[in-house]
Amino acid sequence: MARDVNLNADMGEGYGAFAVGDDAALLKIVRSASIACGFHAGDFMTMRDIVGRAVRGGVSIGAHPGFNDLWGFGRRRIDMSPSEVESLTAYQIGALQGIAANAGTKVTHVKPHGALSNMAAEREDYALAIGRAIKTIDRDMIYVAQAGTKMQTAAETLGLTVAREGFCDRTYEDDGALTSRKIAGSVLQDPEEVTRRVVDMVLNERIVARSGKSLSIRVDTICVHGDEPSAVAVARSVRAGLEAAGIRVVPLTEMALG
Amino acid sequence: MARDVNLNADMGEGYGAFAVGDDAALLKIVRSASIACGFHAGDFMTMRDIVGRAVRGGVSIGAHPGFNDLWGFGRRRIDMSPSEVESLTAYQIGALQGIAANAGTKVTHVKPHGALSNMAAEREDYALAIGRAIKTIDRDMIYVAQAGTKMQTAAETLGLTVAREGFCDRTYEDDGALTSRKIAGSVLQDPEEVTRRVVDMVLNERIVARSGKSLSIRVDTICVHGDEPSAVAVARSVRAGLEAAGIRVVPLTEMALG
Amino acid sequence: MARDVNLNADMGEGYGAFAVGDDAALLKIVRSASIACGFHAGDFMTMRDIVGRAVRGGVSIGAHPGFNDLWGFGRRRIDMSPSEVESLTAYQIGALQGIAANAGTKVTHVKPHGALSNMAAEREDYALAIGRAIKTIDRDMIYVAQAGTKMQTAAETLGLTVAREGFCDRTYEDDGALTSRKIAGSVLQDPEEVTRRVVDMVLNERIVARSGKSLSIRVDTICVHGDEPSAVAVARSVRAGLEAAGIRVVPLTEMALG
Amino acid sequence: MARDVNLNADMGEGYGAFAVGDDAALLKIVRSASIACGFHAGDFMTMRDIVGRAVRGGVSIGAHPGFNDLWGFGRRRIDMSPSEVESLTAYQIGALQGIAANAGTKVTHVKPHGALSNMAAEREDYALAIGRAIKTIDRDMIYVAQAGTKMQTAAETLGLTVAREGFCDRTYEDDGALTSRKIAGSVLQDPEEVTRRVVDMVLNERIVARSGKSLSIRVDTICVHGDEPSAVAVARSVRAGLEAAGIRVVPLTEMALG
Repeated sequence: MARDVNLNADMGEGYGAFAVGDDAALLKIVRSASIACGFHAGDFMTMRDIVGRAVRGGVSIGAHPGFNDLWGFGRRRIDMSPSEVESLTAYQIGALQGIAANAGTKVTHVKPHGALSNMAAEREDYALAIGRAIKTIDRDMIYVAQAGTKMQTAAETLGLTVAREGFCDRTYEDDGALTSRKIAGSVLQDPEEVTRRVVDMVLNERIVARSGKSLSIRVDTICVHGDEPSAVAVARSVRAGLEAAGIRVVPLTEMALG
Repeated sequence: MARDVNLNADMGEGYGAFAVGDDAALLKIVRSASIACGFHAGDFMTMRDIVGRAVRGGVSIGAHPGFNDLWGFGRRRIDMSPSEVESLTAYQIGALQGIAANAGTKVTHVKPHGALSNMAAEREDYALAIGRAIKTIDRDMIYVAQAGTKMQTAAETLGLTVAREGFCDRTYEDDGALTSRKIAGSVLQDPEEVTRRVVDMVLNERIVARSGKSLSIRVDTICVHGDEPSAVAVARSVRAGLEAAGIRVVPLTEMALG
Repeated sequence: MARDVNLNADMGEGYGAFAVGDDAALLKIVRSASIACGFHAGDFMTMRDIVGRAVRGGVSIGAHPGFNDLWGFGRRRIDMSPSEVESLTAYQIGALQGIAANAGTKVTHVKPHGALSNMAAEREDYALAIGRAIKTIDRDMIYVAQAGTKMQTAAETLGLTVAREGFCDRTYEDDGALTSRKIAGSVLQDPEEVTRRVVDMVLNERIVARSGKSLSIRVDTICVHGDEPSAVAVARSVRAGLEAAGIRVVPLTEMALG
Repeated sequence: MARDVNLNADMGEGYGAFAVGDDAALLKIVRSASIACGFHAGDFMTMRDIVGRAVRGGVSIGAHPGFNDLWGFGRRRIDMSPSEVESLTAYQIGALQGIAANAGTKVTHVKPHGALSNMAAEREDYALAIGRAIKTIDRDMIYVAQAGTKMQTAAETLGLTVAREGFCDRTYEDDGALTSRKIAGSVLQDPEEVTRRVVDMVLNERIVARSGKSLSIRVDTICVHGDEPSAVAVARSVRAGLEAAGIRVVPLTEMALG
């Protein structure tokens, strides 16, 4: 039986006149777009543009909420209360829903960004706060969670549909966490190496950590980072590699998720 | 037959640690709240707080979108394209819907703020852009429009339910426009004078302009401005005055609107 | 021999249309103003207004730099590198110098705000980074440092003039740190109690901690917080109490500092 | 006798994680840098980085103040009062001075950005407000003014040193104003065409307008825009073309200005 997997990318991470990444090219390769919602990056016009392109390309749409820290691009850990995290997430999901409705489409997944995602991977209260925002707004939205983290268990606790995410261009630590971006070599840029890792991750359910240790991992979706210069080449290679291995690359909305 | 009217106030116009107005007191007097959505003022926590209080008080909820100009409090005219106005409005409506859904309630009206409202009163393209944002997101939402302006006709053109708004604490020019806030005396603060004007406006469908000229006006809702120090006393007096004149003060959602 | 002390307040902590505190009243009581510089609060017009009033009132002027976190009012701890702290501080000092020069006056002290101040009190690298910004811009500016903290020693290490600061309206922990604002009762609002504590602090060089323990403290300047509703009454009482005890209240620029 | 001219570029027009232009390459070609100061773009770290590179490269430094409109990149006309323009300019000049002092150097010119520049070219009150900010902060700073506009006459009225600026990559209207960026073809990107125009401008003191009409223009400095993809190739060609024509390209601080 054919195995399906989703390929997603973070998009719309510019702001006003500032552009980041080649979203138009990525939208022809990935099948789901996680769109910045105006807090760590993104704005109403960027969002509108990406949503329109995604609809035309058959790419499913998700919110990519982050901390309210434009200067820090949502990568700085900021201590907020869980109720602040819940409202911050609800605001951003709703904002994208407004833009999506205006373009005649729907938001079908939510994937936290940067430091918010990393903190929610570790902290159950954050992971649940994000999950409650999803559940109260539209319980059919998919919670995209770093595989094997508190986000995944929070989604399960709340009875939400979860997509377990693996990162193709980031190295892992032995405990399954992503290596910090501050450490040299944590972002992989060689398309062949990345593709080999991804196919291994999907077919064999494992990833080799930075230490060389083999970790068990089950993923439904693979993230390509839109803000790296190598993103388009990497994404193209990964998609071709997956298809060559007999794996179908589909939108999140077409995955059979738990 | 008893005449109904709505009393609405702009709320949640603080930002983070900055507080503006006594929203808790106003929420016991008015029946509809127009809530700032994070662009000219407001933030996810302020919005969450007001929405929760409104639900408990039987006050209906609306979005109060403005220009993306926090420093200028949305009062500076900025030349945006109609498509920018449409997306800016859709974003803000959606953001409040996210907060409202998270609190278990719904957004039932939209009322533009400040310079955006004043420009939409004059410019059909702006008034229609706001209307399209409303229509595509939830065509049952009420478009609160300055009575007799392009906003009212745009709502009618688009087939939206419109609530015609009068201002109780602002003076009018002979052409029906609000006197600019820059002109001394344009904001009325004496509760008795304001109440007399409001009852006259509702019962006799007229307002006396700054020049002394009597203007014809039909209103469904009266706005009390939350950011004036006198707002609470004025609102209390207006509500008592309306009820003493046999007029029922109801939420926008209970008005029979065209 | 008469003892001198300075009384300072944080000012200009509004933003655009958002006002905080009664700065005009405080400027008639305190002798030095620490002015927000646009990052945690403050903007070019607020700064210009306070600087003008300070000049007319014989009040000396200082920069009050904070984290770039308007929503959080600079009260959220954010992990920045020391070189980021140095540039962030240099920018804000310079900005106030620009406003001050435009008004024909000078910036004579620097006092960090909120979480930046609390982190610099604990971390030598932050305290030194702030000190280097001061030293490279104008080595005659006074470094206002929480008494007994890393800020005081950093100022001494760099050969800067330091003013040791005590807080009249905040409780202290046994280790000399301020009690977190999150703890109930950490901000004192009774003018008589505060005044008694201040006179004791200046004359007897001690403060009684929250636990009841008596701590030794030597201060050159006392801070009144401008953002509390009770600030004006407290400041007036403190100044009267100090003068009744024979203590002169002078600008920082007239203090004999080490 | 050899003719001198300055070549300047707008720099540091990114924000946080958002990068714009190849400033490092441009700094090897131009002799003066006009640095964004945090309002329309730029931040304390970007400014610090550019200032350090400029010092090492013998490039003179100027402030590039703009409207407080990050989303609009300072290109939207916003109606501010002259006193707001004066304080907004003073703040930004001071901020860069703080960063420059921290790096051991000085700010030697001021050049307004975008809509602020275009409005000051037309409005004497804006041009004078900017001039007063310069004069009160450091009257030796050079006011870089669009040649033949109100900015030039304001600088002369205030007795400031002025550098008359020409644009190499923008087309002109018959009245000497720049063609709006909204009009196709208003930004020239062909290095040869641009170079020919610049040499003609410097040697023959004329520019050919979009209509074909020849305009008289005297310039001391030529602007290369850093935010266009073609900026580096254009700047390199312009510099080589000027030098091939026997014109020395020097920092603003080495020009003999009126």
